[in-house]
Amino acid sequence: MRAHELSLAAAAEAIRTRRLSPVELTEAVLDRLDRTEPLVGAYATVTAERALYTAHEAEREIAAGRPRGPLHGVPMGVKDLIDVAGVPTTAGSRVRAGHRAESDSTVAARLAAAGAILVGKTHTHEFAYGLTTPQTRNAWDRGRVAGGSSGGSAVAVSAGSATFALGTDTGGSIRVPAALNGVVGLKPTYGLVPRTGVTPLSWSLDHVGPVTRTVEDAGLVLAALTGPDAGDPASLPALPEPGTGPAHPTASARPSDLTGLRVGVPRTYYFDHVDGQVEAAVRGALAHLEALGARLVEVDTPMARYVQAAQWGLMVPEATAYHERTLRAAPDLYGADVRVLLEAGALLGAGDYLRAQRARTLMRQAWEHLLEEVDLVAAPTVPTTATPVDEETVTWPDGTTEAVSDAYVRLCAPANLTGMPALTLPVGHDADGLPVGMQLIGRPLGEPDLLRTGHAYEATRPVRELARAA
Amino acid sequence: MRAHELSLAAAAEAIRTRRLSPVELTEAVLDRLDRTEPLVGAYATVTAERALYTAHEAEREIAAGRPRGPLHGVPMGVKDLIDVAGVPTTAGSRVRAGHRAESDSTVAARLAAAGAILVGKTHTHEFAYGLTTPQTRNAWDRGRVAGGSSGGSAVAVSAGSATFALGTDTGGSIRVPAALNGVVGLKPTYGLVPRTGVTPLSWSLDHVGPVTRTVEDAGLVLAALTGPDAGDPASLPALPEPGTGPAHPTASARPSDLTGLRVGVPRTYYFDHVDGQVEAAVRGALAHLEALGARLVEVDTPMARYVQAAQWGLMVPEATAYHERTLRAAPDLYGADVRVLLEAGALLGAGDYLRAQRARTLMRQAWEHLLEEVDLVAAPTVPTTATPVDEETVTWPDGTTEAVSDAYVRLCAPANLTGMPALTLPVGHDADGLPVGMQLIGRPLGEPDLLRTGHAYEATRPVRELARAA
Repeated sequence: MRAHELSLAAAAEAIRTRRLSPVELTEAVLDRLDRTEPLVGAYATVTAERALYTAHEAEREIAAGRPRGPLHGVPMGVKDLIDVAGVPTTAGSRVRAGHRAESDSTVAARLAAAGAILVGKTHTHEFAYGLTTPQTRNAWDRGRVAGGSSGGSAVAVSAGSATFALGTDTGGSIRVPAALNGVVGLKPTYGLVPRTGVTPLSWSLDHVGPVTRTVEDAGLVLAALTGPDAGDPASLPALPEPGTGPAHPTASARPSDLTGLRVGVPRTYYFDHVDGQVEAAVRGALAHLEALGARLVEVDTPMARYVQAAQWGLMVPEATAYHERTLRAAPDLYGADVRVLLEAGALLGAGDYLRAQRARTLMRQAWEHLLEEVDLVAAPTVPTTATPVDEETVTWPDGTTEAVSDAYVRLCAPANLTGMPALTLPVGHDADGLPVGMQLIGRPLGEPDLLRTGHAYEATRPVRELARAA
Repeated sequence: MRAHELSLAAAAEAIRTRRLSPVELTEAVLDRLDRTEPLVGAYATVTAERALYTAHEAEREIAAGRPRGPLHGVPMGVKDLIDVAGVPTTAGSRVRAGHRAESDSTVAARLAAAGAILVGKTHTHEFAYGLTTPQTRNAWDRGRVAGGSSGGSAVAVSAGSATFALGTDTGGSIRVPAALNGVVGLKPTYGLVPRTGVTPLSWSLDHVGPVTRTVEDAGLVLAALTGPDAGDPASLPALPEPGTGPAHPTASARPSDLTGLRVGVPRTYYFDHVDGQVEAAVRGALAHLEALGARLVEVDTPMARYVQAAQWGLMVPEATAYHERTLRAAPDLYGADVRVLLEAGALLGAGDYLRAQRARTLMRQAWEHLLEEVDLVAAPTVPTTATPVDEETVTWPDGTTEAVSDAYVRLCAPANLTGMPALTLPVGHDADGLPVGMQLIGRPLGEPDLLRTGHAYEATRPVRELARAA
C-alpha cells in the first residue's frame, strides 16, 4: 500500500517505528493531491510549503525522541469554515474575499499541538448552507455530487489527498459527504468538541468532527479534539476521562465480540423512502453486527414527523441572525441558493423558532428514553447514494419527488436536533459502484460504544478500496 | 414573640424541643391569617382544614420520635402558579377557572416530604406577568402595591400569615415583593430548583425560590428544594453536595466575620435613577458589611444597556409561545395588561429573539468574568420603595418618568438573564416607614456565599419588626 493510502493508525505506526518519515508521508500526500485536484477539486487553499516545513519539524522532533502521539507528522485537511491562523477562511463565499484568519480555531490549535500537518483548507458548500459542495466532485464518480457541506474533506480523505480531515455538521454535513464518498465521519455529542474560531451556520445545531478512512482513525482524531473551551458557550465541562463517556459493559471483551450490545433498528422513518440498494447494504451490515453477537431490537423513531420542521425552524433563523448585517450590506455576494435561505430566515416569527425549540426539547427527551432500551440505533446515513451533479430532485418508486438536499438532511437531522453522537461508516456499494453508508447513533457521550461497534464491523468485514474517480 | 411571628429557624427549634407543637403553630398562623386577609388579601385559596390535618400528623410523627427536619410542622404558603395536587392553580387568571391540579409540582412534593404544612395558595400577578399583584396590598401600607408577581407570598410572610412561602422569579418576581414588604427572597442559580409542575412565564428566565423572614430561613428552605429532576430540561445534574456550591474560603471563620470577602459595588447602572433614601439605606448596609471585614470593590456593570432589550426580547415571545392557543381561543379571559403583552409577543421576529439570546450569552460570560474579581455584587434590589396603588409611573429628579413595572424589573433582570443567584434582604426603611431591600448577586451555585453574607448582616444589624399595615 502506498503511503497516501494508509489509514491514520497505520501511518502513525509506521512513523512510530521509523519505517516512514513525516516528510515522506507528506510528500506522498502532496503528490497525490497534485494528481487528484484537477479531477475532484477538494481544496480551496493548499498549504504545501507550510506542510513540508512542519513535516520536517515533526521529523526532527520524532528523531530526537519527542513523539507527540498518533497524529504527529500526519497530513490532514481542514474544512474552510475553520480558522487556521494566517490562512484565509473563505467559507466557500465571495463574502470572505481577502479574508485571513488572525488566530487558530480551538480545534486547529489542538491538532497543531498534536503535531498534525496541515495540507490545506477543504471546500465547503457556501457557509456550510447546502448539501452538495458544487466546487468539488465525488471521489468515486466525477459526474456525481461530493455531498456537503464538508464535501472537500470527505473527497480529500477518499481520494488520498489527506490522511484525515475535519468537517462540521449542522444537519448531516460531515456524515452526508462521508457516506457518499465511502469514508468514515463522526458527528460528536453536542458540546464535546469546541467551535471557537469556526464560522457558525446554526449555533444550536453545529458540531465539529473528524472525517477519516477508518472508524479506528475517527477515535484517534476525536481524542485530540475534545475538552472544555471557554470560547464556546456550549462547550461541555471537563469529563472524568476527556473525550469518552461510559463504555458499554462488554467493551473489555474481544474487540470484535459484540455480545450483549443492543442495536436498535428503526421500524419507522429511517427506512422510509430509502433506495432499495441502500437498504439492502444496511440490512446486510445489520446482519453482520448480529453475527458478531449484537442483539437487534426493533424500535420506533420518536417524534419523526417533527424532524424537518424543527431542523429548519432552528437552522434558518439562526443562520440569518449570523449573516444579518452582511446580507443587508451586500446581498449579491451570496450564491442564489444560500441567499434565498438567508432571506427566508428574516420572515420567520419568534413563535416559529420557539415551537422548533420546544419540539427539540421533547425530541431529545424521547431519544434519551429510547437509548435506555438500546445502546445505539443503526440506520442508513442517507437514503440514496451520490446523485448526478445536475439533478435537483430524487424520485421515489411511489412517484413522489424530494429535493436532493431534503433527502440528504432527512436521516441525519435527528442527531443534530438531539445532540446525540452519530458515526457513519461504509458498508457496501450500489450497482453503480457508489458507496453506501450506515449510521450509528448513540447516547450523549456514547462515542466509545459507536467507535467500538464500528471498529468491530470494519475489522471483520473490510470493504475498503481507494476511490475510483480520482 | 407570638408563634406566628417566629422565624422558621426559631419555630423549628421550638418544635424540636417540644416547646411548640405544629398544631399550635399552625393554629396561630391561621388565626393571624383570618385577621390579616381582609386587610391585605395575600391568599387565593386557603387550605385550613388540610393544614390542621397535616399539622396533627406532623405532631404525631414528632411525638413518636420521627422528626423530618427543620420544615416539619411549619406552615407555609405556595404561590398560586405552583401545582399542589387537589388544589386549584388559578395563576391569578380567569383562564384557569375550575382548574384543579392533578399532581404535585416537584417543589410542592419536596416540601411535603420535608413535612411542611400548606396553609394556602398565595396571589400572583396574572400568570406572573406583572410586577404589582393587584389582588394584594402591601403589608406595610395598604395604599401601596404589594409588588409582584409573587406579591401574595411576600405579604403573607411579612404579615405573619405564613412562616415562609414559595415564589417564582422571571424578572424579579421573588425579589421585588420581598424587598417592598421587608422580607427575604432568594432567586437561586438557574436550574438548581426544578420547575416541573410550575406554570411557566418564560422558561429560559423562570426560577422558583423561597420567601422568608430571615436569610437563615432562606437557606433552610432552599436545602429542601434543590436536586435534579427529569421533568425540567434545565434542571442541573446532582451536585457533589446537593444545593451548595463551593463556599468562600473564609466561610469556616466566625459567622459574622466577613474578612477576605470581596463585595463588588457597581459604579454604573445599579445606582442610576435610584431613590435617594433607597441609595442611602443600601450604602449604609454596604458600610456595615465593610465593618464586618468585607472589602468593597468598585465594579462596572457589564453590558448594562442591553439588559432591558434582552429581558423583554426573551420573556415576551416565550410567554406568548406558552399562551398561544388559549390566547387565540379566549383572549377576553386575560386581563388587559397581560393580553397586550401576549399579543405583542406574536409580532416579534425570530431575529429579535435570537439577538436577545446572543446578548444574554455575552452578558453571562461578562458576569462570570466580573465574579472572578469579586465574590458577590451588592446593590439595591429595586430603585424605589412600594409605590401607591394608583400610580403607573415613577418620576425621577431629572424629570424623566419610568413605568412602575420597568423600574421594578430593571435592577433584578441581570440575575435572571445570567442565571446567577440573587438574594434580597431588608436593610432599612424610608421616611414613610417603607422597607428597603439590598440585593446580593453571586456566581453560579454561589448560594452559600450569599447566605453567609446576608446572615452575617442580619445577625449583627437587626431591623426586623412585623409589618404595620396588617
